[in-house]
Amino acid sequence: MKSMLPIALSNRHVHLSKEHIQILFGEDYELNKMKDLSQPGQYACEEKIDVVGPKNTLKGVRILGPARKKSQVEISLTDGFTLGVVPPVRDSGDLEGSPGAKLIGPKGEVEITEGVIAAARHIHMHTSDAEQYGVKDKDRVKVRVNGERGLVFENVLVRVHKDYALEMHVDVDEGNAAAVKNGYMVEIIK
Amino acid sequence: MKSMLPIALSNRHVHLSKEHIQILFGEDYELNKMKDLSQPGQYACEEKIDVVGPKNTLKGVRILGPARKKSQVEISLTDGFTLGVVPPVRDSGDLEGSPGAKLIGPKGEVEITEGVIAAARHIHMHTSDAEQYGVKDKDRVKVRVNGERGLVFENVLVRVHKDYALEMHVDVDEGNAAAVKNGYMVEIIK
Repeated sequence: MKSMLPIALSNRHVHLSKEHIQILFGEDYELNKMKDLSQPGQYACEEKIDVVGPKNTLKGVRILGPARKKSQVEISLTDGFTLGVVPPVRDSGDLEGSPGAKLIGPKGEVEITEGVIAAARHIHMHTSDAEQYGVKDKDRVKVRVNGERGLVFENVLVRVHKDYALEMHVDVDEGNAAAVKNGYMVEIIK
Repeated sequence: MKSMLPIALSNRHVHLSKEHIQILFGEDYELNKMKDLSQPGQYACEEKIDVVGPKNTLKGVRILGPARKKSQVEISLTDGFTLGVVPPVRDSGDLEGSPGAKLIGPKGEVEITEGVIAAARHIHMHTSDAEQYGVKDKDRVKVRVNGERGLVFENVLVRVHKDYALEMHVDVDEGNAAAVKNGYMVEIIK
């Protein structure tokens, strides 16, 4: 059985609905791809927006494409202190009851009533990986990070899909707590 | 044997030498205690200073008293990105080869050539606690945090002294990675 896989830190970012792209960037605007991300079909855009909370503004937050059904702001708990909101720890897309924010683009602004979350740590795996690692979709596993800030992340969600590439995702707080950088190898513990 | 103890998050802060207090706040200046900290004899001061790095400034960083032999800036790795330096993960006082910064107070400024660190996670214990928890000074232990962001901190330094009060200290990145707040109970794992 395989157990080692690469980790990546997700910095704060925004997914936008088509409707919100038009409001923030203008009618018929299309996001411009800056670079592909490790997950097939996902990409970082050249565009950034400001996210305004009750206390402060996070300026220049990167947009990830393509457009989603609902706009979603993924920040760390540290970012939450800056903004003045407490983002719940959620799986992507699970936005109910999360705090809102004001989003400001070059052509307009929009107030979202929910959508600010801290992404729950998770592992992306292709269907063929799942067999090799002896896990299945929605499993919860432990993952060890070695080093001077070594730790074991518990309660890590496994997400298996034919469009996924093998990678563990944590946010910046979690990555820094373990003192890891993108591409460091970590270990699934059975 | 006892195993549970409270955790506390250390936000960014500065310890200053007497010489630097005079430079930053004026001759014969004495720091003003705002409140006592959990460790006997340690206190948060009313005074704050700005810490300037190559990339940005951390404004209003709290000073902790009393004065130390050498000035020391304790920040998270997230703060390090903001400043534009990479603080090594160190025990308090172990400053050799760490990055410097410019410190700006109301009456002057000083450039320190080293002293910017990320504090290594550790546990403070009174001598009498050590017996009850079955550990001794300089032991390395594992500590479990429960909850939705449950994890196990490995490589946690135990510091035993008759002037210490029982508490685990982590920085803000580590606290947020585990989604804990001050006073949450965590567990030493043997």
